[in-house]
Amino acid sequence: MRIHHECVSCAINQCQKIVEMSLTDENSRRDAMLFSLKRASELFSKDSIPAVTGGLLFLDLYEFTGNDDPFREYKRLSNEMAGRLVGHFENSDLKTALKLAIAGNVVDFSTGYNPEKLEEDIRRVLDESLLIDHSDELFERLKRAGTLLYLVDNCGEIYFDRLFIEKLREEFPDLKIIVAGKAGPIINDATVEDLLEAGFGEIAEVISTGSRLPGTPLDYVSGEFLRVFRSADVVIAKGQANFETLSELNDSRIFFLLKAKCPAIAREIGVPMGSLLCLNLHLR
Amino acid sequence: MRIHHECVSCAINQCQKIVEMSLTDENSRRDAMLFSLKRASELFSKDSIPAVTGGLLFLDLYEFTGNDDPFREYKRLSNEMAGRLVGHFENSDLKTALKLAIAGNVVDFSTGYNPEKLEEDIRRVLDESLLIDHSDELFERLKRAGTLLYLVDNCGEIYFDRLFIEKLREEFPDLKIIVAGKAGPIINDATVEDLLEAGFGEIAEVISTGSRLPGTPLDYVSGEFLRVFRSADVVIAKGQANFETLSELNDSRIFFLLKAKCPAIAREIGVPMGSLLCLNLHLR
Repeated sequence: MRIHHECVSCAINQCQKIVEMSLTDENSRRDAMLFSLKRASELFSKDSIPAVTGGLLFLDLYEFTGNDDPFREYKRLSNEMAGRLVGHFENSDLKTALKLAIAGNVVDFSTGYNPEKLEEDIRRVLDESLLIDHSDELFERLKRAGTLLYLVDNCGEIYFDRLFIEKLREEFPDLKIIVAGKAGPIINDATVEDLLEAGFGEIAEVISTGSRLPGTPLDYVSGEFLRVFRSADVVIAKGQANFETLSELNDSRIFFLLKAKCPAIAREIGVPMGSLLCLNLHLR
Repeated sequence: MRIHHECVSCAINQCQKIVEMSLTDENSRRDAMLFSLKRASELFSKDSIPAVTGGLLFLDLYEFTGNDDPFREYKRLSNEMAGRLVGHFENSDLKTALKLAIAGNVVDFSTGYNPEKLEEDIRRVLDESLLIDHSDELFERLKRAGTLLYLVDNCGEIYFDRLFIEKLREEFPDLKIIVAGKAGPIINDATVEDLLEAGFGEIAEVISTGSRLPGTPLDYVSGEFLRVFRSADVVIAKGQANFETLSELNDSRIFFLLKAKCPAIAREIGVPMGSLLCLNLHLR
């Protein structure tokens, strides 16, 4: 997916939040915003993939501000809230666990989410139905699959991914499940370290995409990750950034699980904002 | 006043609204936002005056989109709402009329204002008191003044300026009152044409600043306006853009009438956001 018109202001607004989380002095904040503006104008073009260009911009801004992980506390709080909440849902069936994994995708700094609202939002989402639901086909494919590659998105959300993966293991005991996190901190995305802390090491093989960029941009991932990606039978790709970076591959193995949280994604997919989706682009 | 860190995202967010008001096709909107980003990065520096740099950016964007007055309908609606509402306040005393003129400053596109809310907001503001109130000194000065230059801000708001000017004329019948509007459309600022349509021609001398830029940037106004500005005994400067462009002059003749609607202005003046002010910087 390439940028829509809203992606420019969204990136600059996220830069402002990063700056406010990283610096306290007004002159330093102003200089960091002028730096962000300059770098954004150098990086963005009409062919930009929002998650990639945004990610490159944020990493440069991290370097400029000297704060390599401004979301540490936001991520800690998201994980704490989600980790506590997920216990209420342990007896869910497979389909509900899939829906919870999509619901968990509400936790997203880039769309201004406050993790304190998590419980209320998760319960509300469970009452909604998926606007596009290719989950029956996903489960059919998993019956025949040897390997599932599961691409996570944000902290907090990963606790619902873990529940869903536990249910997948019960349903498909012979399936090999590989879960990929980011190589280092970027906004509130889950890193390999976050996955291991959340106990993914006990239920799956945990690997790194080899990149700190949001989503799974194949031009930036490691060769090692690319081999895993190429050889997986089914790929579950969580969240907007994974959709942005993988939607143009025209790859029938990929099932996108996400909530369409911004107007650009909603317009790109052709669904109303807020829609819950389990989407295989080959099955539309 | 020079930019604060929030001015960057504020300008880009305003560009997005201008683009959405001027263009319908998504590719054109995207290109216009990329243009905005590029021009903003060329125009903004740490010495930028927000109203000037923002104004130059918006005028370039008007040219790029081919829409020279995207706020026509917003301004028409603001004027209609305010023109209807001001009739309820005709019997106000001078001090209340001054407060209404400040209250009218809530109408401001740049801070995302919906003119439909005007009546409710005006009545609420009337119950508040001015956080900084140099109005007694203003009226004292006007007793001794020959000429008052009144610098207006936004459409809608100008109907409350008109009421205040009518009350000033009753109180100071010998005072010459000159009202200055913009030379052409820029966001929702009142132009000379808007002033004449609102009946200012019957109660004052109406002139142009000679510039389309928001506020009163002395480097951009006409020589003719500058002569009027230099010779006035008292200046009333309405709204944020006039504060931004005139605050550094260190000119004891200027009384700023405004509501501090954004964090940058509030921080600059050192007051809480939302404060109502009749402020002479020499009297603090």
